[in-house]
Amino acid sequence: MISTSDLISSDTIVALATSSGTTGAIAVIRLSGDRAIDIANAVFKGKDLLKQETHTLHFGTIRDEEVIVDEVLISLFKGPNSYTKEHVVEISTHNSKYIIDQVISLLIRHGARAAKAGEFTLRAFLNGGLDLSQAEAVADLIASENKASHEIAMNQMRGGISSELQGMREQLINFTALLELELDFGEEDVEFADRSEFMQLSTTLKAHLTKLIASFEYGNAIKHGVPVAIIGKPNAGKSTLLNALLNEERAIVSDIAGTTRDTIEEAITIEGVTFRFIDTAGLRDTDDAIEAIGVARAKEKVAAAKILLYLYDAQNNTADEVIEQVKSFRREGLTAILVRNKIDLEGGHFPNEMDDRIREELFEPGYVAEIIAISAKDANSVAALTNSLVLQIRGMVSDDQQVITNIRHVEALKQALQSMEDVDRGFDLGISGDLLASHLRDALRHIGTITGQVDVDRDILGTIFGKFCIGK
Amino acid sequence: MISTSDLISSDTIVALATSSGTTGAIAVIRLSGDRAIDIANAVFKGKDLLKQETHTLHFGTIRDEEVIVDEVLISLFKGPNSYTKEHVVEISTHNSKYIIDQVISLLIRHGARAAKAGEFTLRAFLNGGLDLSQAEAVADLIASENKASHEIAMNQMRGGISSELQGMREQLINFTALLELELDFGEEDVEFADRSEFMQLSTTLKAHLTKLIASFEYGNAIKHGVPVAIIGKPNAGKSTLLNALLNEERAIVSDIAGTTRDTIEEAITIEGVTFRFIDTAGLRDTDDAIEAIGVARAKEKVAAAKILLYLYDAQNNTADEVIEQVKSFRREGLTAILVRNKIDLEGGHFPNEMDDRIREELFEPGYVAEIIAISAKDANSVAALTNSLVLQIRGMVSDDQQVITNIRHVEALKQALQSMEDVDRGFDLGISGDLLASHLRDALRHIGTITGQVDVDRDILGTIFGKFCIGK
Repeated sequence: MISTSDLISSDTIVALATSSGTTGAIAVIRLSGDRAIDIANAVFKGKDLLKQETHTLHFGTIRDEEVIVDEVLISLFKGPNSYTKEHVVEISTHNSKYIIDQVISLLIRHGARAAKAGEFTLRAFLNGGLDLSQAEAVADLIASENKASHEIAMNQMRGGISSELQGMREQLINFTALLELELDFGEEDVEFADRSEFMQLSTTLKAHLTKLIASFEYGNAIKHGVPVAIIGKPNAGKSTLLNALLNEERAIVSDIAGTTRDTIEEAITIEGVTFRFIDTAGLRDTDDAIEAIGVARAKEKVAAAKILLYLYDAQNNTADEVIEQVKSFRREGLTAILVRNKIDLEGGHFPNEMDDRIREELFEPGYVAEIIAISAKDANSVAALTNSLVLQIRGMVSDDQQVITNIRHVEALKQALQSMEDVDRGFDLGISGDLLASHLRDALRHIGTITGQVDVDRDILGTIFGKFCIGK
Repeated sequence: MISTSDLISSDTIVALATSSGTTGAIAVIRLSGDRAIDIANAVFKGKDLLKQETHTLHFGTIRDEEVIVDEVLISLFKGPNSYTKEHVVEISTHNSKYIIDQVISLLIRHGARAAKAGEFTLRAFLNGGLDLSQAEAVADLIASENKASHEIAMNQMRGGISSELQGMREQLINFTALLELELDFGEEDVEFADRSEFMQLSTTLKAHLTKLIASFEYGNAIKHGVPVAIIGKPNAGKSTLLNALLNEERAIVSDIAGTTRDTIEEAITIEGVTFRFIDTAGLRDTDDAIEAIGVARAKEKVAAAKILLYLYDAQNNTADEVIEQVKSFRREGLTAILVRNKIDLEGGHFPNEMDDRIREELFEPGYVAEIIAISAKDANSVAALTNSLVLQIRGMVSDDQQVITNIRHVEALKQALQSMEDVDRGFDLGISGDLLASHLRDALRHIGTITGQVDVDRDILGTIFGKFCIGK
């Protein structure tokens, strides 16, 4: 855990920066701090590192007195031209646990200290190398497992969110400054800050905040995978569909209704988005105790899902049944896709009235999106469904929209929005300028905590950087 | 597996060089080959890598068209100033499997090829960056787990063995050249090669080869750990000793004779040497079937051991018993240390005649080394024993002795020795100069295969480098 003293120390820290394990050829040990180059130089035999330029590489040996510990390559970065903005030395050794341990303990004997989790990145933040939202993005980037989450983390690490927030802050700061200027003039009753102009700015900012807050639903789904519940009556072909989506025989499939009793979860990445498909027990009233638990679980899974795939077919379902069941799951944040399965059995004679009725009764913006006709036994026919899934997710945000993936950020944005609403209400009620300015400063502060431009509680820093691995 | 085409290709290869895993902050992807810099430059946005000096570091981004895959650091090595002697680029990325996969596949799309196991080091060998024995030492170095094996591998990697062999080769080459000069003069019956001088050289070389061959026993023990069998009658305190050596309660200890029935093996590193202690069932004739199997196994373990620790004490053993049992295990390559246990029970009244008799009957160079009196229950008293163990092993070679750890090397040395003996016999029999020269060239060839100075079978190269990990 990061402690307060870490925030002021500039001692030299050391850690293995690459993964431990036996599969690699090389390992990289990282030093950062005022004495990084001195300490490395004391154990390195080769060129005198003190006399070398920044961003250069040097071959030589690490020696413990006369014993050669390893032949290494030294990467030299002179502060502030480094990740941490301090002097940084990276030592590339052979990947032997024995050698790594020897080198690190040798460096510690020469004055370095074992780094704590996230301490290199903490220093980068404290030294202005990156802001807090960028630092958090580094962890997200390392954890990203698919194209979409990688894209969001990369944008955040490169300052996408930060510059958006900075824009908002500047507008607010301008207005707050004008408002505070009025207060300085006290009795004179002048208005430097144009109220109607501000009302417009406030409306824009609130819309902006609302959009960012809303993007969290998407960001969170991308970061943790999109839960998709596959629901339907027994024998609707849910397990067959799961297997077709996964392109493997994951679930046991049979013609016997009620084959799947426990829920089965499998993740698959489609066009860069990870979906966590949840196959459930078929929905029916049942006397089988275990199956009944399965049905109850299926309903729980829908409650936690982002997308509901409701399977039905003309042979086994009536329109009323479909309408009733799908309606029963309706809740905010859930999108339903109706999947008319078993089209291979229809022979072209599907009762279109059925779909027409369903469409009429169920379709509404933000809940049921469409009906897709498939045969779960035919992988090609499943492609239309996966396309639709991807579009549902991609459609949640516009292309150039900044996406929030971090719960800390969304909470700060919600508080900023709250403060802006306090400002608006204050205007309506005609409260005093200093109260208005106080609400505005609250909004600024909340936005500022995201990037760490305003003082962030040290416990929060500890929590953020403590989640990093050692060596980052 | 390395194929013949790998030996002539200079295409550009790519692989992850660090361990895969989720604990690291960074990962290093390595490119080597004629086009390494071109290919890296094609996907790197930052400085133009084609215009940069060797041994420099460059920050920038890897891009797949417009998509930023990662912010990276590029290490640039221009051939022949690199590990492989080719152009080498190392790309330090964030440690995300997704990013690593993206970067490698991007580099492959731009013309690199996935490297095979050991292919970077194979190229270093083929391009003269290191010889074969040095290349083999790289793998040993990575695998080394203690000080002693690290020291031997480091010496070998830095060319210790190579320069020793080179010295021998040069002497042989000189004499062979003189001998072949005689053959050129054919009928003239001149002798450029001084026979008596050669006999002396031959004796020296054979002694040298014999010493190197003998060092394998030590080298192998260091590399794989020294097997030490703990042997004695039931209740001699073998398990108590094992626990004391390991400093933990590994073996079940009781006063009941025959408590240990299966053998127990545990490794511990003492002063840089790894010992594999094998606790065995007590030696006695027994009716218990399982215990009998244990006794048989104990005997097998002694047959595979390097050191025999024979435990006895004045209460439970007679001198004759000790002499008979220890004699029964005698074989070449096995060193016995007699451990008089339970000195805490003696109260200073040990019958010294017993040890005197044992000493007289058993001590001989190369088998029984000494008697050490201990109390296995007292960890301090065990220290004398561990000292003795370390000395036994360290004493196998002199300090400046080159140590052979590789079975391929020892086989080649044995063949070289055989050829030298053929030369000597030829001299004695007065065989013709060209036959002598042929035997000498055989000896040279065998020595040359160790460093790869003479053509080494490609299958052998495949075997050697195939044992490396990918990325090395």
